[in-house]
Amino acid sequence: MVEQKNALTVTTPSEREIVMTRVFEAPRELVWRAFTEPEMIAKWWGRGNKLVIERMEVERGGHWRFVEHGPDGAHGFEGRFREVTPPERIVQTFEWDGMPGHVAVNTAVFVDLGDGRTEVVTTALFHTTEERDGMLSSGMEGGLGQSYEALDRLLATLA
Amino acid sequence: MVEQKNALTVTTPSEREIVMTRVFEAPRELVWRAFTEPEMIAKWWGRGNKLVIERMEVERGGHWRFVEHGPDGAHGFEGRFREVTPPERIVQTFEWDGMPGHVAVNTAVFVDLGDGRTEVVTTALFHTTEERDGMLSSGMEGGLGQSYEALDRLLATLA
Repeated sequence: MVEQKNALTVTTPSEREIVMTRVFEAPRELVWRAFTEPEMIAKWWGRGNKLVIERMEVERGGHWRFVEHGPDGAHGFEGRFREVTPPERIVQTFEWDGMPGHVAVNTAVFVDLGDGRTEVVTTALFHTTEERDGMLSSGMEGGLGQSYEALDRLLATLA
Repeated sequence: MVEQKNALTVTTPSEREIVMTRVFEAPRELVWRAFTEPEMIAKWWGRGNKLVIERMEVERGGHWRFVEHGPDGAHGFEGRFREVTPPERIVQTFEWDGMPGHVAVNTAVFVDLGDGRTEVVTTALFHTTEERDGMLSSGMEGGLGQSYEALDRLLATLA
């Protein structure tokens, strides 16, 4: 068992938001690529499950759609990019096929910590507190933690 | 000049909502069809401009996308259906290509007034007050009014 060095922090600063913070042992340019290049995303986003990147148009107005193939079946996720500012900031919508029409806006900020490490701060804004709480109770934190551990492993092979 | 018999009412009951109410001189089943069948939508939704219905999957999880071809160019609109309950209620997301990733949730309720008329009450919920106010200042009320007048004319030919 390896100790979790860089823990995922999840907070709720307002009634309709979730903030997820995590440090990665890699420079910002590399972390940015891992979040935006399909062939890299496929290696970590699905928590180790097969991930099919159906669409990934990383630009303002572009769409994205991923399908994760897990033991319990296929889960589709999709949305659209509002802002893409390499290597600092991405704003995009997020929607799970299981709850269509329930849309969060995710703002991811990539902070260069100056020592070869990068902090990723993602703020999710929901239309209602109920939708926010539904996301919190969906196992999101555990799933994201697993994805980020997969990303740690990917970054370690590239650093 | 014909007097406006059934006026569009636009109110803001909360900081992130717009409510749009309008009565139509047609039975609910017909109004429902006018809002959900592509060949009918094409005749009124674009305020008299050419409207291309690229996608219209009227069911939970289905997507919709319309492109309006006006004098000032093409404008795309799209979203996804959260709930479809004929002939009473549709909940769907709404996004304009000009502001990608800014998503409103529109809930349309079709009220049978019992005298052959139908009231359509649409509530739009935005993520922020700024987005709500941006929609209000975009000429939305005038545009929707024109579309609904085109719908009046369509319904008159079908009643």
